[in-house]
Amino acid sequence: LTEKEALGETGLRCTVCGQRKEDRMMKEGYPAYTTSCAWLGYSDQQLKQLCTDALKSGWTKFKVKVGANLDDDIHRCRLIRQTIGPNNTLMIDANQRWDVAEAISWVTSLSEFKPLWIEEPTSPDDILGHAAISKALAPLGIGVATGEQCANRVMFKQFLQASALQFVQIDSCRLGSVNENLAVLLMAHKFQVPVCPHAGGVGLCELVQHLILFDYICVSASLSNRMCEYVDHLHEHFTSPVVIQNAHYMPPKDPGYSCEMLESSVQRHQYPEGDTWKLLMNK
Amino acid sequence: LTEKEALGETGLRCTVCGQRKEDRMMKEGYPAYTTSCAWLGYSDQQLKQLCTDALKSGWTKFKVKVGANLDDDIHRCRLIRQTIGPNNTLMIDANQRWDVAEAISWVTSLSEFKPLWIEEPTSPDDILGHAAISKALAPLGIGVATGEQCANRVMFKQFLQASALQFVQIDSCRLGSVNENLAVLLMAHKFQVPVCPHAGGVGLCELVQHLILFDYICVSASLSNRMCEYVDHLHEHFTSPVVIQNAHYMPPKDPGYSCEMLESSVQRHQYPEGDTWKLLMNK
Repeated sequence: LTEKEALGETGLRCTVCGQRKEDRMMKEGYPAYTTSCAWLGYSDQQLKQLCTDALKSGWTKFKVKVGANLDDDIHRCRLIRQTIGPNNTLMIDANQRWDVAEAISWVTSLSEFKPLWIEEPTSPDDILGHAAISKALAPLGIGVATGEQCANRVMFKQFLQASALQFVQIDSCRLGSVNENLAVLLMAHKFQVPVCPHAGGVGLCELVQHLILFDYICVSASLSNRMCEYVDHLHEHFTSPVVIQNAHYMPPKDPGYSCEMLESSVQRHQYPEGDTWKLLMNK
Repeated sequence: LTEKEALGETGLRCTVCGQRKEDRMMKEGYPAYTTSCAWLGYSDQQLKQLCTDALKSGWTKFKVKVGANLDDDIHRCRLIRQTIGPNNTLMIDANQRWDVAEAISWVTSLSEFKPLWIEEPTSPDDILGHAAISKALAPLGIGVATGEQCANRVMFKQFLQASALQFVQIDSCRLGSVNENLAVLLMAHKFQVPVCPHAGGVGLCELVQHLILFDYICVSASLSNRMCEYVDHLHEHFTSPVVIQNAHYMPPKDPGYSCEMLESSVQRHQYPEGDTWKLLMNK
């Protein structure tokens, strides 16, 4: 990516369409998907209940953890696909469980459930492995998503060069600095690959919302196949928690990068004097 | 690499040739090269003197740091090649200084000095970049060496798969555990690429000597284009420092993995009560 290309990519130069995109975000927000419904280990009843509740709250995109047991994965994917129906979106996530050949055969066995992507099918460093998996799964209409363990733009550059992923999952904290995140957004745009950030964890949703808004308003100008992960977890510790409305991230209006934690939360969890630690140590 | 291949590769099964290789190591040692003569910033006189002294001590393989200034590199490489003569070995090391195109053009400008390899021409994560550099430099007879920043076997697997390096530089400490080092030795043998470990630093020479002996006696069974880095630096802090004779690592005879430091060295450098720290803090 040259300097000229990078500057050319940003939509910042046009105030009119920039304003239109900003208005759209303020009104509708940025599309999100939920990882909260289908962790491994949930019972059938719990899976079904969580998906049903999420549907009622407006969620249309669901991620399911897979990779521990194939029969179980088939059972759970079938149940969830039945619950969410054929038109909502299903993604599957293996958390680096497989080697390359195993990933291809396992995901092929799950292809009838029409997942949009398989996430982290193998070692996060294995660019050539992901390229082989991408090539094998393309005829099935399943893309490869990865990036949450990818710490620098050089790794993403190669994933893009090698057509080794179809969804770029930046992690706002794993990539060193906002600048490194922006470099990846610009490269992804050059390769016309959508960015669907990793989030969840402690503060990741808060921290990534600024980047997705920048991506849409200034770089990609598209929401096609784009969505940001959301996990309903630990937001109560932040002074400016994300606002989700109808399964969309609403633009934050508080100043700053949304990374400030509540003083009370910090105190409670400080080692070794915080109440949480004292409680644990007295157990 | 399958389990069967891995077991098949080791020469352990033959006690006769194993014994012969062991005897050879005990007598001659494992070939080393020196990085101590040609760091950046040395004056012409110092470079010449250090190379002349090293030649007298039996060294035949020399590594030169490059990458700061092309004219200076040409000047220094010429001086060293003149001093060591046409038949000794010269290697150059850029410590990740360049991008891919720059690496190719810079090294091409140094090709008249016949370096055996260019080390770390670009980002250590850039497998595809190293593959492009390897391809461009092959007609000049210059190989690419890298690996000291490579933390796992998956990265090495890809470097080998992509023909992105011609010399594998394992780092005994950067790779997690002896097992991870052995996996790389076995893969390198499968791809018939020589392993020339990274050493120097604090204890790296001490720690890698066991691995090169294992590689020769049990895996590669060859010394062709194989040599281990040596830096004459900080060995005085170890209870079993490496023994170099006639520019060869002599097999260690002390028990253990040679990582024990002298109690007095540890005490002197302990923070904040060690004498070295006290001296620094009183400055």
